[in-house]
Amino acid sequence: MVQGAKSVLELLASDFEVESVLGTIDFVKQLQHVKAEIVTVTERELEDLGEFQSNDAVLAVARMKDNRPVAVGDQEFALVLDDIRDPGNLGTIIRTADWFGISKIVASEETADFYNPKVISATMGSFTRVAMYYTKLEQYLAGIKLPVFGTFLNGRSIHELDFGKGGLIVIGNESKGISATVEPFVTQKITIPRFGKAESLNAAIATAVVCDNIRR
Amino acid sequence: MVQGAKSVLELLASDFEVESVLGTIDFVKQLQHVKAEIVTVTERELEDLGEFQSNDAVLAVARMKDNRPVAVGDQEFALVLDDIRDPGNLGTIIRTADWFGISKIVASEETADFYNPKVISATMGSFTRVAMYYTKLEQYLAGIKLPVFGTFLNGRSIHELDFGKGGLIVIGNESKGISATVEPFVTQKITIPRFGKAESLNAAIATAVVCDNIRR
Repeated sequence: MVQGAKSVLELLASDFEVESVLGTIDFVKQLQHVKAEIVTVTERELEDLGEFQSNDAVLAVARMKDNRPVAVGDQEFALVLDDIRDPGNLGTIIRTADWFGISKIVASEETADFYNPKVISATMGSFTRVAMYYTKLEQYLAGIKLPVFGTFLNGRSIHELDFGKGGLIVIGNESKGISATVEPFVTQKITIPRFGKAESLNAAIATAVVCDNIRR
Repeated sequence: MVQGAKSVLELLASDFEVESVLGTIDFVKQLQHVKAEIVTVTERELEDLGEFQSNDAVLAVARMKDNRPVAVGDQEFALVLDDIRDPGNLGTIIRTADWFGISKIVASEETADFYNPKVISATMGSFTRVAMYYTKLEQYLAGIKLPVFGTFLNGRSIHELDFGKGGLIVIGNESKGISATVEPFVTQKITIPRFGKAESLNAAIATAVVCDNIRR
């Protein structure tokens, strides 16, 4: 279920198979060449159907994609999420990855569900451009030959490190960080330099800062 | 109201005036030299009192501080928040500022309330180290002689800019960006370079990336 005009327009322009679009008259009349069933509803009806107050124009239902492996080449960066539990964090990570030109994410099976409406909403449409694959990370990482960067408190400063041309960036759980089963696969521990006294950074924030340093 | 062991311990070590601490026996017995009223409660009672499921050990009530102006010197950086409405975003911004050694925030009167429990929780204890002043931004900025950096889509790349030794970093509203009344006070428009297709970044994410580039 995708809510809000911006996200639904991105959905309709994507390769997702859209089943129904429930929109206000004003929204629906701008639609052309849409294969999905289109239903005209009032704003009041939308409020009752949707989960967010900000959903003022449209809601769409699309088919979920199968959980397919993503192939990461050696000239690109991809994210590995080691138990990101908060849907808002996951959505923000997907949106951030899309900003920094990262279109593949591999996630542990305990990571929040890509299709959770809060995740979809927080991606602000980026869910259409970022592919996500849920799997057992130990098995996945055991079969990978790419550099694996992981954020720790005692790693190499990202202000000094040359990330090269590709690799995996592991982001740890919100409270526990990178798990003991995943840590052995990290080939380069990295750290975001700290200048104040906070103990840690939010997981999505850490993702963004690392991605910006990779692209710099 | 401050919830959770980590945040309450930071509260007790801060200059906030704590009125009551409601904690489990295990939590309460580790407390020493605490001036506040201490009440022993069960975990079940805590769950009923608090707003978050994760609050497993303690909840404290402290006096809010007055809304006092923060003086920003010319050798330091401070944040200016132009209508950050989401409590989670505000809390994450405070935590991020604390990580990057920024301890002063000036915010529009429409910005989310510092004392909202969701804000306090998202700061992960950093609310004790970051001072926040709510005011009319036009009036505040009219009296300031510091460089004022503001994030726009058409500004100078933060990968190239020398931020100097101090100044204000303006962060715009989640959907509207920096307002028309604040924009004229921005002396240097800045941009986070984009490598993918997302239209924008979350406000807290943008704050973090800019702060990291300032400190780099």
